[in-house]
Amino acid sequence: MKVVIVGGVAGGMSAATRLRRLDETAEIIVLDKGDYVSFANCGLPYYVSGEISERSDLLLNTPEGLKARFNLDVRVNNEVIAINRDARTVTVKTPTGEYEESYDKLLLSPGSSPVVPTIAGYQEARNVFTLRNVENLDALMNYLDHHQPKNAVVVGAGFIGLEMVENLKLKGLDVTLIEKSPHVLPPLDEEMAAYVSQELVKQGVDVRVNTSVVEILNDGQAVRLEDGTVLASDVIIMSVGVKPATDIAKKAGLALGMREGILVNDTYQTSDEHIYAVGDAIIVNNQLTNEEALISLASPANRQGRQVADVLAGKARQNKGSIGTAIVRVFDLSAASTGLTERQVKASGKPYHVVHTRGNDHAGYYPGATAITLKLIFNPETGELYGAQGVGAKGVDKRLDVLATAIKAGLTVEDLPELELTYAPPFGVAKDPVNMLGYVALNVMEGLTETVQWHEVPEKLATGMVLLDVRNEGELSKGRFPNSLNIPLNQLRERLDELDKQTTYIVSCASGQRSYLAERLLKQHGVKVKNLDGSFFLYSTVRPEELI
Amino acid sequence: MKVVIVGGVAGGMSAATRLRRLDETAEIIVLDKGDYVSFANCGLPYYVSGEISERSDLLLNTPEGLKARFNLDVRVNNEVIAINRDARTVTVKTPTGEYEESYDKLLLSPGSSPVVPTIAGYQEARNVFTLRNVENLDALMNYLDHHQPKNAVVVGAGFIGLEMVENLKLKGLDVTLIEKSPHVLPPLDEEMAAYVSQELVKQGVDVRVNTSVVEILNDGQAVRLEDGTVLASDVIIMSVGVKPATDIAKKAGLALGMREGILVNDTYQTSDEHIYAVGDAIIVNNQLTNEEALISLASPANRQGRQVADVLAGKARQNKGSIGTAIVRVFDLSAASTGLTERQVKASGKPYHVVHTRGNDHAGYYPGATAITLKLIFNPETGELYGAQGVGAKGVDKRLDVLATAIKAGLTVEDLPELELTYAPPFGVAKDPVNMLGYVALNVMEGLTETVQWHEVPEKLATGMVLLDVRNEGELSKGRFPNSLNIPLNQLRERLDELDKQTTYIVSCASGQRSYLAERLLKQHGVKVKNLDGSFFLYSTVRPEELI
Repeated sequence: MKVVIVGGVAGGMSAATRLRRLDETAEIIVLDKGDYVSFANCGLPYYVSGEISERSDLLLNTPEGLKARFNLDVRVNNEVIAINRDARTVTVKTPTGEYEESYDKLLLSPGSSPVVPTIAGYQEARNVFTLRNVENLDALMNYLDHHQPKNAVVVGAGFIGLEMVENLKLKGLDVTLIEKSPHVLPPLDEEMAAYVSQELVKQGVDVRVNTSVVEILNDGQAVRLEDGTVLASDVIIMSVGVKPATDIAKKAGLALGMREGILVNDTYQTSDEHIYAVGDAIIVNNQLTNEEALISLASPANRQGRQVADVLAGKARQNKGSIGTAIVRVFDLSAASTGLTERQVKASGKPYHVVHTRGNDHAGYYPGATAITLKLIFNPETGELYGAQGVGAKGVDKRLDVLATAIKAGLTVEDLPELELTYAPPFGVAKDPVNMLGYVALNVMEGLTETVQWHEVPEKLATGMVLLDVRNEGELSKGRFPNSLNIPLNQLRERLDELDKQTTYIVSCASGQRSYLAERLLKQHGVKVKNLDGSFFLYSTVRPEELI
Repeated sequence: MKVVIVGGVAGGMSAATRLRRLDETAEIIVLDKGDYVSFANCGLPYYVSGEISERSDLLLNTPEGLKARFNLDVRVNNEVIAINRDARTVTVKTPTGEYEESYDKLLLSPGSSPVVPTIAGYQEARNVFTLRNVENLDALMNYLDHHQPKNAVVVGAGFIGLEMVENLKLKGLDVTLIEKSPHVLPPLDEEMAAYVSQELVKQGVDVRVNTSVVEILNDGQAVRLEDGTVLASDVIIMSVGVKPATDIAKKAGLALGMREGILVNDTYQTSDEHIYAVGDAIIVNNQLTNEEALISLASPANRQGRQVADVLAGKARQNKGSIGTAIVRVFDLSAASTGLTERQVKASGKPYHVVHTRGNDHAGYYPGATAITLKLIFNPETGELYGAQGVGAKGVDKRLDVLATAIKAGLTVEDLPELELTYAPPFGVAKDPVNMLGYVALNVMEGLTETVQWHEVPEKLATGMVLLDVRNEGELSKGRFPNSLNIPLNQLRERLDELDKQTTYIVSCASGQRSYLAERLLKQHGVKVKNLDGSFFLYSTVRPEELI
């Protein structure tokens, strides 16, 4: 069997090495148009700041190393420019010419390429960079070394954009971040992304949302935004998203789907039975919606590469689809997401409810505890888990991994309190934040609490509801709601007569715990009351301008 | 409704506060024989070293605070000495006398008490301490302050024993650890516990297993071990285990089970319909074996407390049992376990197989990556997950939490590679250690690899098998197997003729990855071969004396 693999990074190289383990006799050729295969694409941003100090650390393997260990024929600077399906060959362009290579099976793992926006002045600029491979990194580092830029404009506040912001800032540049969407980190919902925005501002990043670069001026030395603002831009990073790198597949007439991703069946076979595809370039099934999805993440690509090798070697293996889990570190904060966002669930028309909790990453009495804010989106009738998001200084990855596992396993809200997670003071909390998320959601499902979401506050207050703040007086200096009433929780039972039984109160505290206690207490004393989910910490992060 | 709760820590206090949230009118009395309620029992060891520096941090709440917030009637120094079931009262002893308190419902949350071994000289010693509550801690700290001991003997190498070893050592004492079992940390299997032992020795702890203290000499200033060794002991910590604190329950004639734990139904009701019980003192169902179990952990106690409050308030709630998840930090290492140990599975007679993997907590090319060793015990026919254990410097808690969730959800080996976990270089690996554990176990199930376990090596070699080490020559100086053959992996294909087709080779490398590659390669070239699971790192940790 002769297998030709196009693309030698995550999916392609996982396939090549697994196939060799299964089949010592197969002829395996890996063609890559770049100078490098098996490089650490997720590590590239960290070399910019010097956090990863050795360039060689990014190069995980070489064609020589892969030959010696796996007997692979890896050819860099070999770009496949055509698939000749009838002849079962590919046309390969090298620095010195072209050749045809035949295959029994062809595996496409071309990845995705950066979206290049159509902006006036883009072509003339010599200081615009993207960051998808080692060549991109070398070009950027070369520019940084030679021009010693003072400031940078990063366009696009997705995962890679944020990593670039962090690393350019750590390198000492003044950084402006431009995002077209209403908030940074569009894969998260607005209020969770607000924590990221807050961190960026705290670290001195100039964050501008709801706008985009409409023109690049002076060969790249400045950019003009939608509102006419002109910003100096010694260097410009474009990170406005990626698209499947499927030009060759398209030219060869393979069936494509959304955004020209390659359509494959559940054994990674394309519309040509001899051609398979994996990675960023393929359309997968979103397991939560059963709809088409494009997922540009390293983990699924690696899994798919390994699975397609099994298929090529004749083993039964099936692509079961993805739910999508991602994380990004932004300075002292990490932000992560798994499953569907609230926006996605809302758009789907399914019944849903949202809860936010705030808890410590480990026992509060043990040194160094920091807060984690979690969000859960679930079906309030069945308890089905749609998605979760988290932000915090530490331990967010752990909680999202647990939630991702729970979602993948089809667990429900009722199962979350049952999870038995590792607990000792340096590691966790006896009632872990994930357990608490389940308890709070269960309280919603069982009618123990009625919540008001942060974005509902203005409309609710407009109907005559009154905001009741149960924090202690000393906490009010951090900010408070205009026209709110303050009765500290511990005084509530004695001051019930200050409340009007005709009025509905929205109770708020710092994080939502005390306000829930107040809600339970007041409800049983005949007061009409709802709990402000996430309370002051959440509201003051996403809508600071509405507080006094 | 008048509810009397005996015990004001994890289970009892969770029940009291939840019950108040559900029922503002219930009369809730919490009786505790100690000076304190709601203290951080898991935090006590860390105050010994000063890592938790403020004693007040350990006191999470006071009777006054609980009155103000939850309208609870909390009475410390109120010891229940009898349950008068017919009268539905308890007899309470206070520093000044005794009284009767009536109840509609009685909840027992007495916890567990330290096992006191019968050792000659124990009663005379004035320097023997246990650590279950604040009073114990105060007594120990008082002794340490006044006597400035130079050395300590810790008896019992379970979770609390190890935490005490660490904190006494951090305080500057010379510490000897005595464990009756063949290895430290009996809740883990031998080879995983060996990493903990290695760390203890590295940190200068004198570790002695397979022995026990048979006599305490000179009022506690020395101890004699089984083999006659006499050790100086300026201070002695007894941590040989706990037993359910059920004297009162027994005296009242409540039905008891294993080791005199309280028998309850799945709504926490004892054999008396008006009496409920939760926490360390009750017998729970081990969800993996459907057998009785006693679990002394904070998380289940907290969950049970909350659930029994729901039951008392008339809500449907069910104790579904436990799988048992625990973690301990031992200096620079953490060690954790979930589900069943290999010993337990073996004893049950179920078919099982074991795999060990070693991977990085986060991407190797990103600074600060450290190794995690994981063990999975599973059914090789069905893929059922029985249990998992992990050791490493960082990220062990996260992997065990994911595995605990997978086990709780009834996922199988085949599901582990499918888990989509958070990945970015500072947080994880594109193929997470948990994914890899699944891949390796799946390779076993699908017959791609045949493993030899560390404890099988001597018997296998005795049958004529030969150990083939595929590490590079430079690695051999770290230690190697006697009479082993060395052919570096990358030279194997060229040196096949050095191998004998009649001999079976056990291939070993550093961690088990390269040896697996070698196994696959050799098998396809007609060589009889098995893979040493865990390879050199595992073997050299658990059986260092057998290497040269």
